[in-house]
Amino acid sequence: MPDSKVPNVAIKRLPVYLRVLEDLNKADVSVVSSVEMARRTGFSSEQIRKDLAYFGAFGTRGVGYSTDVLIERLRRILGLNRQVPAVLVGAGNLGRALARYNLERHADVRIVVIFDNDPLKIGTRVRDLDVKPVSDLEREVVRRKVRMGIIAVPAAAAQEMATRLVKSGVRALLNFAPLNLRVDPEIYVQNIDLSIELQSLAYYTSQVPGDRDFDDR
Amino acid sequence: MPDSKVPNVAIKRLPVYLRVLEDLNKADVSVVSSVEMARRTGFSSEQIRKDLAYFGAFGTRGVGYSTDVLIERLRRILGLNRQVPAVLVGAGNLGRALARYNLERHADVRIVVIFDNDPLKIGTRVRDLDVKPVSDLEREVVRRKVRMGIIAVPAAAAQEMATRLVKSGVRALLNFAPLNLRVDPEIYVQNIDLSIELQSLAYYTSQVPGDRDFDDR
Repeated sequence: MPDSKVPNVAIKRLPVYLRVLEDLNKADVSVVSSVEMARRTGFSSEQIRKDLAYFGAFGTRGVGYSTDVLIERLRRILGLNRQVPAVLVGAGNLGRALARYNLERHADVRIVVIFDNDPLKIGTRVRDLDVKPVSDLEREVVRRKVRMGIIAVPAAAAQEMATRLVKSGVRALLNFAPLNLRVDPEIYVQNIDLSIELQSLAYYTSQVPGDRDFDDR
Repeated sequence: MPDSKVPNVAIKRLPVYLRVLEDLNKADVSVVSSVEMARRTGFSSEQIRKDLAYFGAFGTRGVGYSTDVLIERLRRILGLNRQVPAVLVGAGNLGRALARYNLERHADVRIVVIFDNDPLKIGTRVRDLDVKPVSDLEREVVRRKVRMGIIAVPAAAAQEMATRLVKSGVRALLNFAPLNLRVDPEIYVQNIDLSIELQSLAYYTSQVPGDRDFDDR
């Protein structure tokens, strides 16, 4: 069960651990130390041990973690022991790219429906999915028992889409629209705002030592 | 100058403040309280005051912040007082969507070159930009004095691209490839990994109270 004491930042690291473990498992590595996990993930071994300890201690001191056991355990914690359906709202450039990216992979979280309100987009296909009208949103989300929504619509439409998704049973939103969605506090919202990311990156590029002396060498 | 005491999470909130301030400014609001900023951003007013205090106190107690002054100041802090050029490596689905999204806006961080190694993509256009061969990467990055790189290539190619970008002068990377890039510690890397985002979202959808009893009402 989701433990409210586990910080969101720790939850966000679990899939990174899972990926590393699955790579090791494919390479027939059956046991891994937190030090090796640290080397491969970029997080510290203390951090990794602490994160995993939230869910019980799985490692054997001086030996490490069984990759099989930890993979299975992390998948259960994340709810990935079965495929998780998601809906995507917005079939513009970004939405279509996200859908193609997701549908090309054997992803454990899979987009199962795409919605748009543009008559020119409705009925077009992205891989094997039809773009459906937004008027079908509630019916499809309820029928398919979808709990995850991806919002890739313009800012002006995003709040309405979020509200309708949540009313239909969605509990977690990945929001690409550039605004702060207002939803009930028990709904988890992860924002990915490309303009914001680029603007904050600018900070780290803006004042380099010897900036004015940078030349073309 | 970049202050190493300012945490990265605070830097990431500055563009959110900037967006809210610019919206207010457009609506002819000349003064705003941290409480109103909190309402519009979703961050607490204490958080906002603390973040802004890293760069000096700009607000007037009991009155608030001058939107004009704070916009100008935040733009300088972020290095957005002039347009910031960025390069994009990878002209696949995601790369093209990112480029279109960026180029459609009057963005203060602007993609100025796109690279790919696929002969079928080289020479194609995304908006007004040609996709150039990766062999031109060093020359273009140095010539244009670009400090920001966006990596949207498959995992297998990402490390090499990161290394080459950094060697050519790039100081900050936005990495969409699903791996942990190894770069010098003074290089700032922000990862956006769509699979990881969806997997961590799954945690919040996986165990809803009354899960087994969820019905179609």
